[in-house]
Amino acid sequence: MQSVLHLVSGDESEQETTLTIAKNLLEDESGDIDDVAVVAQAGGIEAITSDGGFTEEVESLAENGASFKACANTLEMEGIDESELLGNAETVPEGAVEVTRLENEGYAYMRP
Amino acid sequence: MQSVLHLVSGDESEQETTLTIAKNLLEDESGDIDDVAVVAQAGGIEAITSDGGFTEEVESLAENGASFKACANTLEMEGIDESELLGNAETVPEGAVEVTRLENEGYAYMRP
Amino acid sequence: MQSVLHLVSGDESEQETTLTIAKNLLEDESGDIDDVAVVAQAGGIEAITSDGGFTEEVESLAENGASFKACANTLEMEGIDESELLGNAETVPEGAVEVTRLENEGYAYMRP
Repeated sequence: MQSVLHLVSGDESEQETTLTIAKNLLEDESGDIDDVAVVAQAGGIEAITSDGGFTEEVESLAENGASFKACANTLEMEGIDESELLGNAETVPEGAVEVTRLENEGYAYMRP
Repeated sequence: MQSVLHLVSGDESEQETTLTIAKNLLEDESGDIDDVAVVAQAGGIEAITSDGGFTEEVESLAENGASFKACANTLEMEGIDESELLGNAETVPEGAVEVTRLENEGYAYMRP
Repeated sequence: MQSVLHLVSGDESEQETTLTIAKNLLEDESGDIDDVAVVAQAGGIEAITSDGGFTEEVESLAENGASFKACANTLEMEGIDESELLGNAETVPEGAVEVTRLENEGYAYMRP
């Protein structure tokens, strides 16, 4: 099974919950979770930059197999350069299109 | 691909993000997004009335092909008349049933 | 059709909306909703304990057929004992894995 987490909120507590849930999915002992993707956009984008306060968490998630995708529309609107992204984040043209694509591929959506 | 956005929050910033994402989905250059539905209920209903502060955005989205659906249970609870709805919104008996139906038809769910 | 509600927010108003939506799904007159599951985790867990202020609502939902699932990771982190859970809640190892499983079984996800 595959899970996609929508990191879309600017609320720090919701961002923290999202990253904790990503960790719990990766560490799940049932062995049923094959992939965890995190799509960051809108207010959620800062959480995967060094200004977000979650540098250690994001890097550790990426090392443990989570894939981060950052919305280029948001990066442009917020004036954030790709180089500021953590967790080896890949840039996608629009986060919501990427979420739609992943759901169509069978990923289960969550927005903590 | 089809996307359904759940406009369920009373938070104005989350409402704005939802409408911005609807716009980005409609304008997506990949051409992979065939339909964008917005289901408004609970605290999110006001965003598609003239009191919500998003009149221009909602009308423009409707003109560009987004379909708005308003929860009749919420309208009744909030004392809002159908005539106050923007964006040619169609009324559905219960928003969450409509979301369930759309997801069953293959729409990808997002709740920004 | 089947619906899964993610009770993940610590915001009392969002918790109330989630429980109201569960009620509306159960009472839907179309007869199209066969099951309503509520997965509680993170900030949402308190809403299904006696400290959450929704005792009557949760018990009534359970009596009317909603199934509550509580995340064991959250219970441990928050120091909440299973005995404090309302609504005949079943404990699952990780709420997000349960949501992923339910979505894979065809449940439509909502996060009010």
